[in-house]
Amino acid sequence: MNHPAQAAALKRPVPPALLEALAALFEDRFSIAPAMREHHGRDESSYDPMPPDAVVFAQTTEEVAQAVKLCGSHDVPIIPYGTGTSLEGHVLAPSGGVTIDLSQMNRVLAVQAEDLTATVQAGVTRKQLNQEIRETGLFFPIDPGADASLGGMAATRASGTNAVRYGTMRENTLALTVVTADGRVVKTGTRAKKSSAGYDLTRIFVGSEGTLGIITEVTVRLYPQPEAVSAAVCSFPSTAEAVSAVIQTIQLGVPVARVEFLDENGVRAINAYDKMNLPVQPLLLFEFHGSAAGVQEQAQLVRHIAAEHNAIGFEWATKQEERSRLWAARHNAYFAMLQMRPGARAITTDCCVPISRLAECILDTKADCEKNDMIYSIIGHVGDGNFHVLMMIDPHDPDDVAKADGVNARMVARALSMDGTCTGEHGVGLHKMAFLVQEHGTDAIETMRVLKHAFDPKNIMNPGKILSW
Amino acid sequence: MNHPAQAAALKRPVPPALLEALAALFEDRFSIAPAMREHHGRDESSYDPMPPDAVVFAQTTEEVAQAVKLCGSHDVPIIPYGTGTSLEGHVLAPSGGVTIDLSQMNRVLAVQAEDLTATVQAGVTRKQLNQEIRETGLFFPIDPGADASLGGMAATRASGTNAVRYGTMRENTLALTVVTADGRVVKTGTRAKKSSAGYDLTRIFVGSEGTLGIITEVTVRLYPQPEAVSAAVCSFPSTAEAVSAVIQTIQLGVPVARVEFLDENGVRAINAYDKMNLPVQPLLLFEFHGSAAGVQEQAQLVRHIAAEHNAIGFEWATKQEERSRLWAARHNAYFAMLQMRPGARAITTDCCVPISRLAECILDTKADCEKNDMIYSIIGHVGDGNFHVLMMIDPHDPDDVAKADGVNARMVARALSMDGTCTGEHGVGLHKMAFLVQEHGTDAIETMRVLKHAFDPKNIMNPGKILSW
Repeated sequence: MNHPAQAAALKRPVPPALLEALAALFEDRFSIAPAMREHHGRDESSYDPMPPDAVVFAQTTEEVAQAVKLCGSHDVPIIPYGTGTSLEGHVLAPSGGVTIDLSQMNRVLAVQAEDLTATVQAGVTRKQLNQEIRETGLFFPIDPGADASLGGMAATRASGTNAVRYGTMRENTLALTVVTADGRVVKTGTRAKKSSAGYDLTRIFVGSEGTLGIITEVTVRLYPQPEAVSAAVCSFPSTAEAVSAVIQTIQLGVPVARVEFLDENGVRAINAYDKMNLPVQPLLLFEFHGSAAGVQEQAQLVRHIAAEHNAIGFEWATKQEERSRLWAARHNAYFAMLQMRPGARAITTDCCVPISRLAECILDTKADCEKNDMIYSIIGHVGDGNFHVLMMIDPHDPDDVAKADGVNARMVARALSMDGTCTGEHGVGLHKMAFLVQEHGTDAIETMRVLKHAFDPKNIMNPGKILSW
Repeated sequence: MNHPAQAAALKRPVPPALLEALAALFEDRFSIAPAMREHHGRDESSYDPMPPDAVVFAQTTEEVAQAVKLCGSHDVPIIPYGTGTSLEGHVLAPSGGVTIDLSQMNRVLAVQAEDLTATVQAGVTRKQLNQEIRETGLFFPIDPGADASLGGMAATRASGTNAVRYGTMRENTLALTVVTADGRVVKTGTRAKKSSAGYDLTRIFVGSEGTLGIITEVTVRLYPQPEAVSAAVCSFPSTAEAVSAVIQTIQLGVPVARVEFLDENGVRAINAYDKMNLPVQPLLLFEFHGSAAGVQEQAQLVRHIAAEHNAIGFEWATKQEERSRLWAARHNAYFAMLQMRPGARAITTDCCVPISRLAECILDTKADCEKNDMIYSIIGHVGDGNFHVLMMIDPHDPDDVAKADGVNARMVARALSMDGTCTGEHGVGLHKMAFLVQEHGTDAIETMRVLKHAFDPKNIMNPGKILSW
C-alpha cells in the first residue's frame, strides 16, 4: 500500500557526523542494517515500510535525551518505537531519521502497592507489568489486545476492552517522564491521584504519538484484583438487537468491566481459528468484576436485558480457564480474520460515537462493507461506543485499497456526523490526518499546530504524524 | 491581607477607547462602577480585593470573542468570572483589565440523556444543572461544596466529595468551547466517551484557570442516579485511626461514593453551627451508591474496617432527609469554622498525597497547627488523599498571616516530599505560584511557560496567575 506522494518529498538528509556520534554513544545498540531499519519502519498497518536511516536502542532516559540532542543539532527526525503494534503508521519514518527503540527500557522501577500505583520504564509491556505485580493483589487494567509497551500505550492514548469500567490511558496515567525536543527531561506530575497544580502536562503528552516529546517513564494507576470475576456470552438474532442490549446496559449504569461485540463474520473467523463452536450470529462477550454477590447481580441484570433483546443462550464462564479461552479468542480475532483471506493484510480502523448512535453507526457501516463486497468484520468495545472495522485486502490491488479507503472515510464521516470521533483508540498516525481536520475544524487544528510549533520548533519529533507542519 | 509587591507594578493602562468600545458593545451589561469592580475583584480567599477596571456581562460565546479581541487590540488583561468562589485569588485583577462575568451564560444547551452527556454554557452552576436534569434519572456528580459554575469548575479542575468514585473535572469534561487569546472560538472535542484523535485540547484548558483561554461552553458526563444511596457516620478515638480506616477501604477497592474526614475541631464547629450532637472526635462520613444489595454490602465491609480501627458508633442514614442534613453540615464546615473566631477570615488551603502517606501528612500538619496556636480544622476528601486546612485568621494581623503562611508552606513541602501535589483541587491562582515551581521543577515549569507563551503571546489572559511571565 502506497503513501501520499508528499511523504517522500519530506525526506531529510542524515549527515554522517550524526551517525558517527550515535554509533559512538550507543555502540552495539546502534544499527544501520537494512533488516533492522526495515523492521522499525513498519507497524501493524497495511502501509509498506518506511525505514528510518538508523536505529538506536536506548536503556535510560539520559540516553534518549542525548540522542534527541544529537538529532536536534542536525535537524534530523527522531521516532520513538515500542513494540511496533500501532495501527495507523505511527512508527514509520516518512522523513527518514533515527528511530529510538525503547524495548530495552523494560524495568518496572517501583510498585507502590499501598498507593495502587506503579512506575515503569516506557518499554515495559502491559503483560510484563501484570506479571510482575501479580502477587500484590493488584492489576493494571488497560488492555488494547496487543502486548504493547506502556510508553506506546500512553503515546497513543490506548484503551481497549476494560476501558468501559476502568478508563483509558488518559485516566490511568498519573505522571510521565518525557524528553522534549530540546533534550530536556521533564517530569509531568506526581503520584497524587488528583491535582489542580498548573497545566496538565501529563495529558498534553498522552496521545501525542511522539510528536511533542518522547515518553521514557510512565506512572500508572493500579486496581485491586476483583474478588470475583465472571464472564458471559450470548448471541443475538441481529446486530441491532445486540447493540441495543449494550446501550441499555450502559444507560442503566451496570458497571460491566468489559462488553465486546463481534459480528457474525468475526464469530465465524474465531470459530475456525480457535476451534470454537459459537453460533454464527452477532455475539456479546461480557465480563463482570466485583464481590461474589455483586458479580452475580450484574450478570442477572444483563441476562434480563439480553433476554429482552431476544438473546439466544446466555452462557456463564466463572472458571478462569473458560474465561481465558473466550478472551483469547476475542483477542485473536485479528489473526483469525487474516485467515479468512490467505495472503491478505488487514486494514483495521476504528471510531467512537455517543452510545445512543452506536447501533445506527455499526449497521450503516456494515451495510457499506457488504455493498463493497469486503471481507470484513466489525468488532468493538461497544460499551464505550467504540468499534473496529477489520477489512482483509490485497494491499497491492488499487481497487481493493480504494474500496477499503472509501469504507473507512464514510465510517469516519458517519461518526463525525453523530458527534463522535475519527478514532477512539488507535490514534491518528499517518492515516487519519485528513480526518483529524474534518473532526476538529480549522480553529482547533490551528490551536494544535500552535502547540506543536511551540514544543517542537524544528519539527524533529516524529514529524509528519497527527498534523501537517 | 496584602499581595506581593510585584502585583501592583504590573498594572497596565486601560485606554478610554477600549472602555468606550466595550460600553457600546455591552450597553447596560458594561460597568465601571466601583462596587461592581470591587465585587469582581475578590473571591473567597483572604486577599484584599484587586478590582478590574471594568466588568462586562457576556451572554454568548460570540460576545466573549468580541471582548477578547477588543482587549487584545489594546494589550489589556481579560479575566473570566463565574461565581467568585475560587480560593486562591483566581479572579483577582493584579494587572487591572476587564472582567468578563459569565453568570448570564446560564443556559443548559442540550441534555442527551440517552448518551449520559449534557452541554451547558459556562455560567450554569452544578446545582442548576442537577435541578434541570433531575427528571432524566441522571445526575452530575462533581461537588466542590460551593455552587460553582461549570466553566469555573472546568477552569480550576475542580473535584470535591464525589471524586473518589466519579473522578474530577479532568475525567468528566468531554469537550469545551473556548475563546482563545486571539479571539478564535475553538471546540476542543466531541461527545465520544473516548478519543485518540490528536492533542488533548480539552485537558489543556481544564485547569488552566483562564490563562490560556476563556471557557464558554462545557460538555460533561452524567451518571445514572444510583438505585440506592446510604450514608454512614462514625467517630474514631484518633485521627490516625480514622485515616487508616480510609486507607484500608481504598486499598480494598470498596467503591465508596464519598468518604469525608472532619477532625475534632471541624466536628465541634458544625455541632455549634448546625445544632448537631456529633461526638467531638475525628469523624468519617461515608456515602455508598449502588444497588440496594450492593450498598448494604459496601456498608457492611466499611463497618467492619471501621470497627478494626476502634470506631465508636457506626450510624446509618438511609433516608434522604438524614443524609441531606449530614451533608449540609459537612458543606457548612467552612461557615461553621468562621464562627469559631468572630470577625476572622478563613485561609483554606489544600494538598493531595498518595494514600499511604495520608495519615502521616495530616498528623504532622495538625501538629504544626497546634504548635502555632491556630484556630483551625482539617477536613478532607480523604479517599483521594486530598485534605484541606482551614485556618481562621485576622487578615490584618501580620503575625497571624505569617503563621498561617508558614503552616501552609510546610504542609505543601510535606506533601511534595511524599510525591504529592501542592493543590488537589483548589488550583494555583495567585497564592500557590511559588509552590508550583517547587512541585514541578524548572524544566516542567519551563514547558508550561512555552505553552502559555504560545497560546497567549501578549499575556492578556488572566495574567499573573499560575505562572510568572
